[in-house]
Amino acid sequence: MPDDLPDAPSPTVAVLGATGLVGRKILEQLELRSFPIGELKPLASARGGTRTVPFRGEQVPVQEACARAFEGVDLVLASAGAAVSRALLPAAQEAGAFCVDNSSAYRMDPEVPLVVPEVNAALVHGAGVLLAANPNCSTIQLAVALAPLHRAAGVKRVVVSTYQSASGAGGAAKRELLEGTAAGMLGDTTEAERFPRPLAFDALPQIGDFDEEGISVEERKMMQELPKILGSEIAVDVCCVRVPTLSGHGESVLVETERPLSLQEAADILRDAPGVELAEDGDYRTPGECEDRDEVCVSRLRRSHTFENGLQFWVAADNILKGAALNAVQVAEARFLTPAAPEQEPQPAGR
Amino acid sequence: MPDDLPDAPSPTVAVLGATGLVGRKILEQLELRSFPIGELKPLASARGGTRTVPFRGEQVPVQEACARAFEGVDLVLASAGAAVSRALLPAAQEAGAFCVDNSSAYRMDPEVPLVVPEVNAALVHGAGVLLAANPNCSTIQLAVALAPLHRAAGVKRVVVSTYQSASGAGGAAKRELLEGTAAGMLGDTTEAERFPRPLAFDALPQIGDFDEEGISVEERKMMQELPKILGSEIAVDVCCVRVPTLSGHGESVLVETERPLSLQEAADILRDAPGVELAEDGDYRTPGECEDRDEVCVSRLRRSHTFENGLQFWVAADNILKGAALNAVQVAEARFLTPAAPEQEPQPAGR
Repeated sequence: MPDDLPDAPSPTVAVLGATGLVGRKILEQLELRSFPIGELKPLASARGGTRTVPFRGEQVPVQEACARAFEGVDLVLASAGAAVSRALLPAAQEAGAFCVDNSSAYRMDPEVPLVVPEVNAALVHGAGVLLAANPNCSTIQLAVALAPLHRAAGVKRVVVSTYQSASGAGGAAKRELLEGTAAGMLGDTTEAERFPRPLAFDALPQIGDFDEEGISVEERKMMQELPKILGSEIAVDVCCVRVPTLSGHGESVLVETERPLSLQEAADILRDAPGVELAEDGDYRTPGECEDRDEVCVSRLRRSHTFENGLQFWVAADNILKGAALNAVQVAEARFLTPAAPEQEPQPAGR
Repeated sequence: MPDDLPDAPSPTVAVLGATGLVGRKILEQLELRSFPIGELKPLASARGGTRTVPFRGEQVPVQEACARAFEGVDLVLASAGAAVSRALLPAAQEAGAFCVDNSSAYRMDPEVPLVVPEVNAALVHGAGVLLAANPNCSTIQLAVALAPLHRAAGVKRVVVSTYQSASGAGGAAKRELLEGTAAGMLGDTTEAERFPRPLAFDALPQIGDFDEEGISVEERKMMQELPKILGSEIAVDVCCVRVPTLSGHGESVLVETERPLSLQEAADILRDAPGVELAEDGDYRTPGECEDRDEVCVSRLRRSHTFENGLQFWVAADNILKGAALNAVQVAEARFLTPAAPEQEPQPAGR
């Protein structure tokens, strides 16, 4: 039974990992979107250097992230990695806070909804739900683009190759790419620390360790998370590749639907889909061009020559914004600002 | 009926486009591989700046590329673009020269063999054949990797996404990426000239113009050339993307075969395949790591979750070397140094 709303008229909001790349973007989004906040509690580990973060024209002191910090907190937006989430979010829920976790810690927990608001916002109002997981960045943009096609024609199989920017590995990784690039321009090389190998002027077909099947952590996430978000068994083949870009993820996508969709039908569906911008007539969006854009940009929509009911497209989005911070804030908006309504129940896949 | 060999014991060799990125690499390969040469004639347009090219420790004067230049020439290795090939190669053949053309001018001409020596070298000995086409760079490395799987189990469908370096667009394009990168490091942007949009720190899902189906020139090449090389109707879906790398092309590949191949069988086949280096046990090759390597490097071999008889892998190669210059020189070697033999006839696809 969905809870009644709002949880709190002016909630106390904790941002866990407030000094990181995603944490800072969460603060920006809370401010930009005028999310109602009574008190803001930026939290970070004690070792962090930054002791204040800017919010609504003021410098707000960062507090140490620990279990006691959640007393009186209504909403936690967490982006401090899976270990920190596992260590601290149980205490936050015990303190009565609603948590949106950007880490991978709880995504595949069957008790925890995995939420992309354009797809399944209503799940945040589920009975007893105090924790929602934010999907992985590369999965979010794919889910936003595929969900409307899935509702219309049922997605059966998806083949994806990703072009993921350095920012997906955090601020230090972005700096590593820039330093490696500067060295590369001078004919030097630098050691890789944040990436498995030097990324400057190269492409690395590895994001995370490989499992016994030879599938990387990042690839396994998409294979598992996409079916959970769309609520349907979908076969996924994916190759995740880090490319030497700073911002935005691109994805080459081939999708097979159960029922045929003409290119015109698919374009009409995507043009009207929430959170999607469709570029048409030979136009397209690069990952870099998606920086600071809320929308997931779909372009290069074309027929498949390998699948009978197949479509190909290119999808790009700001991985730190819609791929992380914006999606988390939208999940909070769904919980705190949108009343639960019967028509918001997740829709079954089209048949 | 195959011609007898050799055409000439110490052929006079013209390199058309000798001052370009690929032309210079062709000269390097002729020298490195000790190709027998009586006389070398480097040819380039009159406007070019470089007037000599290094070969076997000497500076050889560049001559103007024109029809008369082919008198007495036995072999032409052409890499000066499709327009130049169309303008000059008919004269070269009339003069009796065997031509290997690296441009797209004649690739899909049914009279002209499209040759990857590891796959179909015997075609250079076809009756009356005086012109062989070098396939497009991204197609060559794919064909080398797929041919042995095709012979063993019959390739039905291929889904490819490419990660192509700036060097594929020539030396000036490489400089454009470096200049754009330097500007980007300072927070500036530069205009795109050789690429459709600025490439520095971004990924461009466009290589060549789009046709009425929304397929780019580069994508159409792979869709047409791969079936011609493998001698079989193969359905191809491909997304070609330029990434800000300097050297080497990477490709994410999903292939469906007619008969099932276990991972072990596929690995055994690829390990023994000519021109292939297989990286196993979680190792892989990046495009940058393939610089100056002759082999096409296959890695990340794994099962498909979308195709029943499906395999996925990553293939990377030096696009200027095996993707262009080396393949052209190998075609010349097949013609001039390898006698035609019945067992060299192209093998039918496995059934």
